Amino acid sequence: MIIVMKQNAKKESIKNIIRIIEDKGLSAHISDGKEVTIIGVVGDKTKLHDQNLEIAPEVERIVPVTESYKLANKKFHPEPSIVKVGNVSIGGGNLVIMSGPCAVESREQLFDTAHAIKKSGAQILRGGAYKPRTSPYAFQGLEEEGLKYMKEAREETGLAVVCEVTSLAAIESAVKYVDMLQIGARNMQNFYLLKEAGKTGLPVLLKRGLSATIDEWLNAAEYIIAEGNPNVVLCERGIRTFETATRNTLDISAVPVIKSKSHLPIIVDPSHATGVREYVNPLARCAVAAGADGLMIETHPNPAIALSDGPQSLTFPQFEELCQELRPFAELMGRKF
Amino acid sequence: MIIVMKQNAKKESIKNIIRIIEDKGLSAHISDGKEVTIIGVVGDKTKLHDQNLEIAPEVERIVPVTESYKLANKKFHPEPSIVKVGNVSIGGGNLVIMSGPCAVESREQLFDTAHAIKKSGAQILRGGAYKPRTSPYAFQGLEEEGLKYMKEAREETGLAVVCEVTSLAAIESAVKYVDMLQIGARNMQNFYLLKEAGKTGLPVLLKRGLSATIDEWLNAAEYIIAEGNPNVVLCERGIRTFETATRNTLDISAVPVIKSKSHLPIIVDPSHATGVREYVNPLARCAVAAGADGLMIETHPNPAIALSDGPQSLTFPQFEELCQELRPFAELMGRKF
Amino acid sequence: MIIVMKQNAKKESIKNIIRIIEDKGLSAHISDGKEVTIIGVVGDKTKLHDQNLEIAPEVERIVPVTESYKLANKKFHPEPSIVKVGNVSIGGGNLVIMSGPCAVESREQLFDTAHAIKKSGAQILRGGAYKPRTSPYAFQGLEEEGLKYMKEAREETGLAVVCEVTSLAAIESAVKYVDMLQIGARNMQNFYLLKEAGKTGLPVLLKRGLSATIDEWLNAAEYIIAEGNPNVVLCERGIRTFETATRNTLDISAVPVIKSKSHLPIIVDPSHATGVREYVNPLARCAVAAGADGLMIETHPNPAIALSDGPQSLTFPQFEELCQELRPFAELMGRKF
Amino acid sequence: MIIVMKQNAKKESIKNIIRIIEDKGLSAHISDGKEVTIIGVVGDKTKLHDQNLEIAPEVERIVPVTESYKLANKKFHPEPSIVKVGNVSIGGGNLVIMSGPCAVESREQLFDTAHAIKKSGAQILRGGAYKPRTSPYAFQGLEEEGLKYMKEAREETGLAVVCEVTSLAAIESAVKYVDMLQIGARNMQNFYLLKEAGKTGLPVLLKRGLSATIDEWLNAAEYIIAEGNPNVVLCERGIRTFETATRNTLDISAVPVIKSKSHLPIIVDPSHATGVREYVNPLARCAVAAGADGLMIETHPNPAIALSDGPQSLTFPQFEELCQELRPFAELMGRKF
Repeated sequence: MIIVMKQNAKKESIKNIIRIIEDKGLSAHISDGKEVTIIGVVGDKTKLHDQNLEIAPEVERIVPVTESYKLANKKFHPEPSIVKVGNVSIGGGNLVIMSGPCAVESREQLFDTAHAIKKSGAQILRGGAYKPRTSPYAFQGLEEEGLKYMKEAREETGLAVVCEVTSLAAIESAVKYVDMLQIGARNMQNFYLLKEAGKTGLPVLLKRGLSATIDEWLNAAEYIIAEGNPNVVLCERGIRTFETATRNTLDISAVPVIKSKSHLPIIVDPSHATGVREYVNPLARCAVAAGADGLMIETHPNPAIALSDGPQSLTFPQFEELCQELRPFAELMGRKF
Repeated sequence: MIIVMKQNAKKESIKNIIRIIEDKGLSAHISDGKEVTIIGVVGDKTKLHDQNLEIAPEVERIVPVTESYKLANKKFHPEPSIVKVGNVSIGGGNLVIMSGPCAVESREQLFDTAHAIKKSGAQILRGGAYKPRTSPYAFQGLEEEGLKYMKEAREETGLAVVCEVTSLAAIESAVKYVDMLQIGARNMQNFYLLKEAGKTGLPVLLKRGLSATIDEWLNAAEYIIAEGNPNVVLCERGIRTFETATRNTLDISAVPVIKSKSHLPIIVDPSHATGVREYVNPLARCAVAAGADGLMIETHPNPAIALSDGPQSLTFPQFEELCQELRPFAELMGRKF
Repeated sequence: MIIVMKQNAKKESIKNIIRIIEDKGLSAHISDGKEVTIIGVVGDKTKLHDQNLEIAPEVERIVPVTESYKLANKKFHPEPSIVKVGNVSIGGGNLVIMSGPCAVESREQLFDTAHAIKKSGAQILRGGAYKPRTSPYAFQGLEEEGLKYMKEAREETGLAVVCEVTSLAAIESAVKYVDMLQIGARNMQNFYLLKEAGKTGLPVLLKRGLSATIDEWLNAAEYIIAEGNPNVVLCERGIRTFETATRNTLDISAVPVIKSKSHLPIIVDPSHATGVREYVNPLARCAVAAGADGLMIETHPNPAIALSDGPQSLTFPQFEELCQELRPFAELMGRKF
Repeated sequence: MIIVMKQNAKKESIKNIIRIIEDKGLSAHISDGKEVTIIGVVGDKTKLHDQNLEIAPEVERIVPVTESYKLANKKFHPEPSIVKVGNVSIGGGNLVIMSGPCAVESREQLFDTAHAIKKSGAQILRGGAYKPRTSPYAFQGLEEEGLKYMKEAREETGLAVVCEVTSLAAIESAVKYVDMLQIGARNMQNFYLLKEAGKTGLPVLLKRGLSATIDEWLNAAEYIIAEGNPNVVLCERGIRTFETATRNTLDISAVPVIKSKSHLPIIVDPSHATGVREYVNPLARCAVAAGADGLMIETHPNPAIALSDGPQSLTFPQFEELCQELRPFAELMGRKF
């Protein structure tokens, strides 16, 4: 941590900062510039409440030097992590495709989808049983009934299954039925939910918040890992910007940035990022080319009657075509698919 | 709802849309333009899944005409609402000041604050017992112990008290101790929490999400009201933009926009919006001038040792000065304070 | 400037940085932390190309400590500046209202407007003769003919006049007719235009770019002042965010932030910021309460037939009402109006 | 164009709108909904000033149905355009790499770069002679001297050359030396410059503005084409968001969106988009996989001493490696490179 003093700060103010630092058993390195004095803190910064230093007399600002996340940080865990979901390994040279409907609507819809996506090469079935919807009047999901269908689809097809959870009650149900919990974008900083998901020990798919920085996203992952659960997979799904041609703006740079800052696997969801079916294929290819460890793609037996997110869902033939299209890109990237 | 067809859409595609609309018992009004055909839907749109229409052949886009929130909508409830919090009325010509520390740290800190802010004119004491923090290693709040101090401070001073809740467990505790529940920015679309807060019947202070549109915010309010609880107060606390001189960007326009679209009271939190103490006073004056029904201002006996949000907290003398400064502005706006 | 080295950087890499710094005649202060080494630079940083240090081996990042603008910086010019426009003083305790149509459409329209706004208390007449429009097919302004009407309106009413310029040719015309040049939001980083405007010596009204940071805005002002022209007035007119209820998001915090970082006067344009007439009055009151030195308000004899920006223009009676409404707020802020 | 009336608008207000429409020789289609009346306009909308309709009594809002750009619109020009730059064709199945330094610093630097990039497969040399810089104290370019070096480099290597222009004076110089003009992000809505660039007839590389929507970008292209110059190539270079891990956020979705809405070729600049060298390669692969027609990549003989944008520049061996890496991706996309 670095403390930058205001221009021509008084000696007294500088001494005050040094005293605060030394009182905590840390040491201060002083650098007297022509215009400003800078104080470096040496030692365990968690002992200091930096925000208080910030309001000490004549402090201009505080510059953090190290990231606040440790367990998710590549610096302290240089090898890329591999997360096991059922029999599927995410990370480590695989390209894992998760697919399925936005919302589980019926056993038939789910089973048809599970069989179709498996045939095309997907390894994990997704399906929403608890749907966070902007309006209370929109379809909210089948809840536990949907989870049961997920489990049956797993038994029928051998696919691993992942389902979003939105409350402790949903987690308590989900652990009985699914292989992986998903925390959605709107709950990325629902810290209570993160901790509860962490405690289950199940692998967690953590979507990026609509306006979360990458730093905040990794801190959210830290909440899960700090519960003793290192099985976190990140999912980039678009951020909110002023652009309206797509539902969100896919921040594809997040893939190399995460690879540079963290050891956690990262997948990309081009369906939610764009909200437009015709943009799903090009962005799925991008994700593979950027080095993502997997993809989440919405599919539906008949998108025209989907209860949720029809416009971006692929039909089964479209999904098959996408998988064919992705194979050579995966190969170029040295990924098994 | 309006359906805009693609340029030179085939008759068959247009007929298809009309059939879907009429199948639901609604009627369709066709407008054949030189370039495009537009279809207006007459009747109860909730019977249609607009997203599915969006992917019907040759549909260019769907334009919603009416808002999805009803109970929060001024159109169906033209009179401004007044929300009672303990003995305090928010809305209807009052300027209500809520103040207190970001986090409850001790009984002494809270009592000192409660007495000081009451003397200056605040009517509601705020204080966080459950703190959502970006990093799991930051101070997370005193939890139920903090709530107890809040209740005691209420008994001691007669101030109403409001506290943020972050989980069902927190709500279950809070209802025993506080007059008003706060849903924080990070939980604005934690729909499960909104419903549970709604069920308590307690007034709810609903902060705007970091990147929530006003439309989404009013839909979040709708979740609470739809549980039979009309006692919602909105709180603008800054949105996320590219600007870094302030922690967030206070969207002051939200005040007149909410007044135009909804009957719910709205207050402003300049402390969190800016994160900088010297900007709190000018923005508090703005909020009053914009027509806000109240303010939330962070205060602390000694900001330099606050465990959270020190840089933006006011000392008691600063808070007294702010209240003095605001009085004539409140008077100009015809508000009692 | 501070150089933060990567964790466990080699001694050699640290020596390399020190050598670069000392080669330029500057000195380096080393702070060896437990995790990272930090190097403070003492001396005239303009001699260093910081971006190159950034890519030297094992450099984590460079933290600038001082702002790049000097002439616009309050640190080096603590007294607030007063800018004279004709006989009008902006800054220093006045509240200056600029008003007029978005686009000059005819002599009659402009004269009617000039008389009406003068009567209500405006001191400066605005009017666009060169209109930057998103589409090439929209009305682009009367150009030099419009400027002539501006000059005539000045002679007729005694109001000072300001007009936007969008090219060197426009500047060359404008200097013959107007008292103040306006650089619009889209040209805020048209550095060529800034320099040319600076060279004229005329006062310049510099609007904030649609997505400009405050730091970039002050650097743009620096371009003008560096040409020997200190007569710059800043104008906050809304920034681009994801919110769609208003055309832009008025960043009202910019007023106290500018007051804290610069000595230049700042005015607010609530008409362009919101694009909605009914929000103009509350935001104009905000601007005064925030401490702005003035306002820019669009007016039109008959907004329903305006060739540009009708929705946000006030009629003359509405403008008169606004001025009446603002007077007591100006008085509270200690401003003459 | 669709006019949505306010709920329960009076008959008189509806008749007023119809009269305005019919006065212009257009016709109105009325759709009386249960809640609102909607009026569709049939005929040539350019005859209407929609903003004025917006403020007519009881109008809720105006919904545009057709895009304002025509010449850049795929609807009226379904075949993809191919733009010739010297002997190089952009569009139509090629992958064109433009490369070179951010700023031309010396003849030697430019020649070394030209030879190196040509060897690796680039077809166009870029180099800035007029540098728009945030601070007036940063290096501003060699101006005409830089252009001369560009021309000499073209003669020496046979590469086509492109250079940014920032003023009419710069255009007048550039036409003597270069094959293609570049309009930079900060000037995307410098409409005067767009028109002047259009008049030259030279191909124009139009970078997307820092916070420009895709719709505004295509309207900016329209300004150039409307001058009779159809030779426009678009360049996505990142937009401004709240994320700070990269300098800007590359909006990779812009590639398929542009392909869907326009016939103009589009290239991607991952160097400026990220500002970080290690992210350039993954994002360059993305651009190819998304379907871009080319790339702009910054290179420098020795980035550590570059006068501008060192951190993101590739060395020649790194550029060679990137080109090798891209070849198989280009092949998969069916592009010649």
